[in-house]
Amino acid sequence: MSTPDTSVHRLPNRGRYDRETIDAILDEGLVAHVGLVEDGHPVVIPVAYARDGDAVLIHGSPASRMLRTFKKGAPACLTVTLLDGLVLAKSAFNHSMNYRSAVLFGEMEEVSDLDEKYAALTLLTEALTPGRSSSLRPMTEKEVRGTTVLRMAIDAASAKVREGGPVDPDEDADFEVWTGVIPRVDTWGPAIPTNDVDVPDHVTGYRRA
Amino acid sequence: MSTPDTSVHRLPNRGRYDRETIDAILDEGLVAHVGLVEDGHPVVIPVAYARDGDAVLIHGSPASRMLRTFKKGAPACLTVTLLDGLVLAKSAFNHSMNYRSAVLFGEMEEVSDLDEKYAALTLLTEALTPGRSSSLRPMTEKEVRGTTVLRMAIDAASAKVREGGPVDPDEDADFEVWTGVIPRVDTWGPAIPTNDVDVPDHVTGYRRA
Repeated sequence: MSTPDTSVHRLPNRGRYDRETIDAILDEGLVAHVGLVEDGHPVVIPVAYARDGDAVLIHGSPASRMLRTFKKGAPACLTVTLLDGLVLAKSAFNHSMNYRSAVLFGEMEEVSDLDEKYAALTLLTEALTPGRSSSLRPMTEKEVRGTTVLRMAIDAASAKVREGGPVDPDEDADFEVWTGVIPRVDTWGPAIPTNDVDVPDHVTGYRRA
Repeated sequence: MSTPDTSVHRLPNRGRYDRETIDAILDEGLVAHVGLVEDGHPVVIPVAYARDGDAVLIHGSPASRMLRTFKKGAPACLTVTLLDGLVLAKSAFNHSMNYRSAVLFGEMEEVSDLDEKYAALTLLTEALTPGRSSSLRPMTEKEVRGTTVLRMAIDAASAKVREGGPVDPDEDADFEVWTGVIPRVDTWGPAIPTNDVDVPDHVTGYRRA
């Protein structure tokens, strides 16, 4: 399969190609932005996803136009971006953002085998809410059959990482402007229950260190 | 210009087309995912952006492949997604996410006039860090000329909003599973200074209510 050049062109020192960096970004994110081409036009749609070893899984309704397009072998791009902070320099020109992004190119492959689909859907639940799947009403065969699951190999992939403080040139030294980083933190508020069942640990402790 | 059908196909009750909803999403987000087509393949790249009335502005280096592609009139898609929470139902099948997303289709137009570029870059700084632009070392003409600014009209646009609690079918009533929402909150940590200048209010109060 032909893929676009996956090398990071701009600011090449920010490019990373090791799987450890790419996997860490994929494992921390919850929402990916998936790109497809429709009648020659780009379309970008947010989706929940989960990494499954050397691949990323997405799922949805069999009626989804995006999933149907990918089932036919259309080329895909899947991007996950984590915003880590705002980088405030002395000039607008040198302002930046700290972020980590992973970009995957390739085609999606349908997961058709019922047992594999069951495992994939369980993994998606666990990736988004660790510890929850065993407490749930079990999936029915009808539900598993009624869900499309696609797998995209982590193959043609790259990451981009910007970290650290602002970089101001020496000639700006005399300008009295506060510089630094405002870090962004992913925070989860107290759970809002919709029934009276005791709140389980996987909810109270959700993404808390 | 031809654009893809912007109507929201899946779960049409989630589709919103009013500018108020679309603008609110664009004004809250900081990073957009921009889609382009390269040799028939989709490419999705994260970018900082700002809304300027009836358009969205992005900027970057004149060497950026993405910006050069859009300058030539290539079709673009710009998507902003705000994740608001995880929606935990009794079954994996009925789990969901609360989110708001806005999707814009169209072409980008270069902002070439020097005064307009200056205003656009000031607006980008103010959108990302309100109150900061007046404290900065002024932009130089070289910096303004050395930055590409593109404008995308909010024209063929739609939003999608999922809110509220989980929806479980009546037949799951007997399953004792905690249900509810874990809300996601955008939080900003204490600023990390890289010089001794007094921390300005626009930094200490960044995105704090």
